[in-house]
Amino acid sequence: MRIVRFGRGTWGIVDGERVRVTRGPGGAVIGRTCALDEIRLLPPVRPTKIVCVGRNYRAHIREMGHADVLPAEPGLFLKAPNALAAPTAEIPYPSFTKLLHYEGELAVVVGRRMKSVARETALDYVLGYTCALDLTARDRQKTDLQWVQAKSADGFLPLGPWLETDLDPQNVALRTYVNGELRQDGRTGDMLFPVADLLSYVSSFMTLEPGDVVLTGTPSGVGELHRGDAVEVAVEGIGSLCVRIV
Amino acid sequence: MRIVRFGRGTWGIVDGERVRVTRGPGGAVIGRTCALDEIRLLPPVRPTKIVCVGRNYRAHIREMGHADVLPAEPGLFLKAPNALAAPTAEIPYPSFTKLLHYEGELAVVVGRRMKSVARETALDYVLGYTCALDLTARDRQKTDLQWVQAKSADGFLPLGPWLETDLDPQNVALRTYVNGELRQDGRTGDMLFPVADLLSYVSSFMTLEPGDVVLTGTPSGVGELHRGDAVEVAVEGIGSLCVRIV
Repeated sequence: MRIVRFGRGTWGIVDGERVRVTRGPGGAVIGRTCALDEIRLLPPVRPTKIVCVGRNYRAHIREMGHADVLPAEPGLFLKAPNALAAPTAEIPYPSFTKLLHYEGELAVVVGRRMKSVARETALDYVLGYTCALDLTARDRQKTDLQWVQAKSADGFLPLGPWLETDLDPQNVALRTYVNGELRQDGRTGDMLFPVADLLSYVSSFMTLEPGDVVLTGTPSGVGELHRGDAVEVAVEGIGSLCVRIV
Repeated sequence: MRIVRFGRGTWGIVDGERVRVTRGPGGAVIGRTCALDEIRLLPPVRPTKIVCVGRNYRAHIREMGHADVLPAEPGLFLKAPNALAAPTAEIPYPSFTKLLHYEGELAVVVGRRMKSVARETALDYVLGYTCALDLTARDRQKTDLQWVQAKSADGFLPLGPWLETDLDPQNVALRTYVNGELRQDGRTGDMLFPVADLLSYVSSFMTLEPGDVVLTGTPSGVGELHRGDAVEVAVEGIGSLCVRIV
């Protein structure tokens, strides 16, 4: 099932070329339908928090120069919900950075409250998966006390196009294109900490609420963006988001 | 005016020994009243995000060993909303730390959406002020990629007892007591970045929503907590929160 949020915050499920309006995310169908290509998609989440993993693909750790210190546990940071942007958004290049980077990621959305959940059952708490673009002011990561301006500025997290509820999160391709050119070409099976481990670890000290988002890290190939660039993040089995830097 | 949230999430305003129930925070009185000493207070906020300042009092910067690098702009970090705890909570000492620290702070709660607001008008957007205890796993600050376990574990942000809407945020005493003993004795006038500057700076790249919380930093005198300790954070003109580590 593909869960969308659109317009002024209406929820629906995708049915071919149509969207059936539902009561809440994945809830009962209430009759009305819309054409999928006529609606304005929103980020398909309303999270209380967004928890992210900094170093979860070996080749990305290497390219960032941290290869000698493979993490023993997931290295986390937060993005604030003001960062969320639609999967077709135009994102203004921020004035506070000279080095805006793309990081394509698989996003996990929680469906039920999670508190100290074992890895064996963690995936039972997932509502669905979607594509995420973790925009990063790479230069601000060095000057921020913690990565707040670097990671949580308005528009720094395009997410969508929908939640796919049926996906094996460890067996799909994850690709990022800039102006149509392939820049990141990873597989989620290469995560150091798989989704079940991440959810279990986070829930051991932070209660995860329905709608909360966990970003699972980016593969190698991150790089710079400029005004006018179109960035596409595509996850096999889900679809893609495509935003423009303006 | 003092705005409280209590019970299962009811809002009210304090009127002497009584609480008048209101429609939302600071909204219209809807008739019913309760005895203030009979209700169970909740954190008086429902934030989409909690933005914190790491180094905002000179004496605290000194005690943390960073005196040579006075910040040119506010150093920020985030706490996630799962950290919120009632102003009379019992907080379990977490298993993942051996060095739990208290940091008493003045919390600012936003009343209206703020985006790129000038410092001159920033205080017009404030709904009210309250007391905050920024619990910190000091040892985890060194091992976290970013301060997520160190700052955002469940219960790491007791907040309350209520929002005081009438306060000069730069001219009050801020004190923390452990088991009745005075440990932090600051004045908000000593902030490096006053509240108006903080709000203006944050809103320049993060849209602040109604209910969002900005923590303004801690004065000197931070220190260790142990099981059984009672921690009180008192802000002149507001009142105090008092929690127990169990």
